Amino acid sequence: MTKIARAYTNIALIKYWGKKDKTYKIPYTDSLSLTLDRFYTDTKSEVINSDKDVVFLNNQELDDSKSLRIRNYLDTVRKMYSFDEHFQINSTNHVPTSAGFASSASGFAALAASINSTMNLDLSKKSLSILARNGSGSASRSIFGGFVQWHAGTNNDTSFAEPIDESPDIGIVLLSVVISKAEKSISSTTGMESSVKTSPFYSNWSTLVASELVEFKQAIANKDLQKIGEISEHNAMSMHALTLSANPPYTYFAPETIQILNIIKKLRNNGILAYATIDAGPNVKIICSKESVQKVKDFIEANITGISTVEAHIGRGIEYI
Amino acid sequence: MTKIARAYTNIALIKYWGKKDKTYKIPYTDSLSLTLDRFYTDTKSEVINSDKDVVFLNNQELDDSKSLRIRNYLDTVRKMYSFDEHFQINSTNHVPTSAGFASSASGFAALAASINSTMNLDLSKKSLSILARNGSGSASRSIFGGFVQWHAGTNNDTSFAEPIDESPDIGIVLLSVVISKAEKSISSTTGMESSVKTSPFYSNWSTLVASELVEFKQAIANKDLQKIGEISEHNAMSMHALTLSANPPYTYFAPETIQILNIIKKLRNNGILAYATIDAGPNVKIICSKESVQKVKDFIEANITGISTVEAHIGRGIEYI
Repeated sequence: MTKIARAYTNIALIKYWGKKDKTYKIPYTDSLSLTLDRFYTDTKSEVINSDKDVVFLNNQELDDSKSLRIRNYLDTVRKMYSFDEHFQINSTNHVPTSAGFASSASGFAALAASINSTMNLDLSKKSLSILARNGSGSASRSIFGGFVQWHAGTNNDTSFAEPIDESPDIGIVLLSVVISKAEKSISSTTGMESSVKTSPFYSNWSTLVASELVEFKQAIANKDLQKIGEISEHNAMSMHALTLSANPPYTYFAPETIQILNIIKKLRNNGILAYATIDAGPNVKIICSKESVQKVKDFIEANITGISTVEAHIGRGIEYI
Repeated sequence: MTKIARAYTNIALIKYWGKKDKTYKIPYTDSLSLTLDRFYTDTKSEVINSDKDVVFLNNQELDDSKSLRIRNYLDTVRKMYSFDEHFQINSTNHVPTSAGFASSASGFAALAASINSTMNLDLSKKSLSILARNGSGSASRSIFGGFVQWHAGTNNDTSFAEPIDESPDIGIVLLSVVISKAEKSISSTTGMESSVKTSPFYSNWSTLVASELVEFKQAIANKDLQKIGEISEHNAMSMHALTLSANPPYTYFAPETIQILNIIKKLRNNGILAYATIDAGPNVKIICSKESVQKVKDFIEANITGISTVEAHIGRGIEYI
């Protein structure tokens, strides 16, 4: 019987920003993420007697243009593992776009795991991470739970994620603050490319990431949530500095992004643990502690109208149900 | 008879961000500015029979704490030119803080020129620029009109401004957009220090400035206003990238800053010449052409309520009236 593969999404706390190799999605630097329990994708793959894959997302068949990225990915998988079968893919996304998370991380991790299961490839988690990365860079990290490091590597065999601590007892809570009236922004792929090619500061990004990774792993070992917050916020803002210094300059920040950053500073001034991280979009995710999260939530909802928050905790790695 | 010295303020289009020497205000890099006709300071200095300077600003005597920076500066001036006289300073500021400009550039330029006149020092403009710089770095540029370059230099004798083109026929208009509900921000001195010490990207700032200076001067020579706008916007955003990447990160942007940056992009998409520059505060100054300025003004006032704009053109250097 075909199993369902479940993969949770993850949030990068040391960001992935810049591809050294676009085909294999090899990044310029390592990155470090937290897998989240709240948002996941369930995927089932069944072999069909056809030379074309069929993809259903949330019970709706995708048309050719919408399924293209997935079908191309399946071609890659077939090539990597030398088989010819085609599939009917049924994928259900529990990553509401309204929560401000991309679903590509959980989506491609679940798809990779599902093919692994259906084709009895019996892949190691390392190989599964490599396979997922070929679909979407950040998917390589969603194979594992908790804190995860994606090693940049130099080619398709050496670029994969590994867990740092799959169930850290550190009380971290991630609060996603969803900005409704967001301006349409440029894709992360386009954004990365622009930073790499045109930011005068990009050459220092890898040195920064390398030193913040060391500090971050020490902070995990020390269960030092404040330090984790500090590094995460600095790393995220430095990534956004690479968009502001691109030529032409651009920013993913919306007016409300600045409002929320100001609120986070106020909360910290009042002794409440709250640090920001922001991906390639206007939404702010706040790193909180079990103790601070309700206060942060209340303060934001009291101070900005029309803003909702979604709480997430540490999530597990790939599961087969 | 004692003359009034008049100095106009200036806006840096290649920014000054970082002091190599705090005492003499020697910057890490050159900078390039446009002197503006709209905002200026008138200053008169009279020798008084006292061992303490007296300072009037806008017809009001400043108390000891408020006049301290000016009295300290006058001590520096006395030391530099070996005289003992003290002064009654009467200064009138036509730089409304509501227009989003700092008055220290025109203020210290006018004060330096005024002492030069009263004491018959007969200083060259180069020496006057050095003298003004000792009060406020950006004041070194307000000695001249039009486009001005401040050479960073390495010590008190070699750090001074020079005109590039005092009356360029280039049709540049600067529109200051004043954001009312601005959050209180950190001073530029504190901000610079933080960027220099903690931004992982600061080491690339001087290379960037050097190359953008060359391009900018070529654009002046070519009367290429669009190119001037592009370089100015990129340079300003890169300066703000140095605040975002400081540790801890900070930003001078207010929510309305982002709103206006979005509007400027929309204007450009409609073929209207408009480029942003932003100093150490939330206000946006827009580089326009004679043809575009009214459209830019109308569009902003139609799209954001409670926002006013002030228009300025190319200003002259120091004048004695």
